[in-house]
Amino acid sequence: MKIQPDILASALLVASSQLAWAQASCSPTPTYTFTPEQLRNANRTLSIGYVVYPGYAILDVFGPLQFLEGLSWPFSINLSIIAKTAGPVGSRPPPHHTPDGSIMDMSRMIDVQLIATHDFQTAPPLDILIMPGGVGDLHLVEQNDTAIEDFIASRFNTTEYVLSVCSGAGFLARAGVLEGRRATGTKAVWDFVTQFGTNITWVPSARWVEDGKVWTSSGVTAGMDMMVAFVRHLYGDPRVNNFVNNLEYLAHVDPRWDPFSVLHKVPGANMSIPLTSTVSPLQPYPEEA
Amino acid sequence: MKIQPDILASALLVASSQLAWAQASCSPTPTYTFTPEQLRNANRTLSIGYVVYPGYAILDVFGPLQFLEGLSWPFSINLSIIAKTAGPVGSRPPPHHTPDGSIMDMSRMIDVQLIATHDFQTAPPLDILIMPGGVGDLHLVEQNDTAIEDFIASRFNTTEYVLSVCSGAGFLARAGVLEGRRATGTKAVWDFVTQFGTNITWVPSARWVEDGKVWTSSGVTAGMDMMVAFVRHLYGDPRVNNFVNNLEYLAHVDPRWDPFSVLHKVPGANMSIPLTSTVSPLQPYPEEA
Repeated sequence: MKIQPDILASALLVASSQLAWAQASCSPTPTYTFTPEQLRNANRTLSIGYVVYPGYAILDVFGPLQFLEGLSWPFSINLSIIAKTAGPVGSRPPPHHTPDGSIMDMSRMIDVQLIATHDFQTAPPLDILIMPGGVGDLHLVEQNDTAIEDFIASRFNTTEYVLSVCSGAGFLARAGVLEGRRATGTKAVWDFVTQFGTNITWVPSARWVEDGKVWTSSGVTAGMDMMVAFVRHLYGDPRVNNFVNNLEYLAHVDPRWDPFSVLHKVPGANMSIPLTSTVSPLQPYPEEA
Repeated sequence: MKIQPDILASALLVASSQLAWAQASCSPTPTYTFTPEQLRNANRTLSIGYVVYPGYAILDVFGPLQFLEGLSWPFSINLSIIAKTAGPVGSRPPPHHTPDGSIMDMSRMIDVQLIATHDFQTAPPLDILIMPGGVGDLHLVEQNDTAIEDFIASRFNTTEYVLSVCSGAGFLARAGVLEGRRATGTKAVWDFVTQFGTNITWVPSARWVEDGKVWTSSGVTAGMDMMVAFVRHLYGDPRVNNFVNNLEYLAHVDPRWDPFSVLHKVPGANMSIPLTSTVSPLQPYPEEA
């Protein structure tokens, strides 16, 4: 599919955005407004924990983590990678059964091993808990292994934020922490994710959903867009945008734009969502922000 | 910065793309054309090696790797993660000196450890070699540690493709394998990357550059767009596009669109490149492709 952008519209967009940037950068003494929470976050240490398991999806973990890693230079962030057993955890999914009862052996897939720093017993207090998805969840569900859900449930009330990516929302649902909330998950296996939990308003068309302390994203790479929105929420645009631009990341900033809900014909999806959207770098700020 | 997309242009784009998709999916017996190389790649094992070092950039490695990992299910792909010493390698940059001679201590940053499977002596024959960037390169350059460059030079003639992400192009330049070629690298530290090597045509405005067997990308997340183009080149769109869509990734498919070269005012950049572009899911194909 070849898309020819509308030249005039494009030129107008660029002119308006460059004007806005020029205005921002010409201001000799810019003053920025931060929320009390943003001021507090910039001056404290945030304890962030990722839960991983064999068969985690690589970018569910490392996509959002790139943004947190970079921001651990200007800000104080501690990271714990938490698994059933500390040590190497691989991305290769363990075998699971298909609906017809046969075994799905995925041992041909390449295996990327990261090192979990803590187990569920040794994990420190967490301000933020992040739950990635991955095909490995099929094995855990099949085995009735609820160690992760038990950990989430035990930590939910003492964390300030809980985030999930892709099928990670299934873990939150099974842990019971999505009750009474709006949430989303990957559109590629929507039926699987949304079968869990009770009294959850699953949002079929959403790149991500923010409901109070719980942020849930759609599939895999949607987690990066959620994380960009989340760190802008945590620290404020003037302290985050330049960093995102330095990663040369082009964030989708409208959580309602979800062309994949249309593509996958998710039940209840807003089928009038355009498949095409525009992106640009985030508004830059003078370095002293 | 708020951007209001041109509604009419957007509607036309969507209509034309949906028409193209409808035509593709209505064809009862689609026939796809693959290049001889694509047919060969689909039926052989590709040996892919990543070179890593302390202070690698997380998404330089794991962004492109997500696409290769997923494609190791339909295709046969072996992965080697290669470092000076096999075992854990962290993302935290070692100390390096700033231009004024003081020591830049980055030990406050969070550290993500992956496991290198091979060292430079035990690495298997490689069809594809991938070189990520990262702040850790400053330490290696300062120490005159050329082990990575020596490895690249020793393997260059026997690999079919060599790829770099971000400041990874600096390693290729120092290894001498970019001589007589066009290449690009991150726009955030353009001067640093392009100081290395001789007889290299550095392309200031490029999301990525393909020059024969060498593909080089701009900064960090540009590596994912390069990799999407690369795996479509390797295996053909009909065998790749649905997978990319299932990751809910919105690829930038024009290698010349590089708003960050404009933002960073890179010398020689094409300053008429619009800062805004359009994205959409890739064209889907019937599953049997």
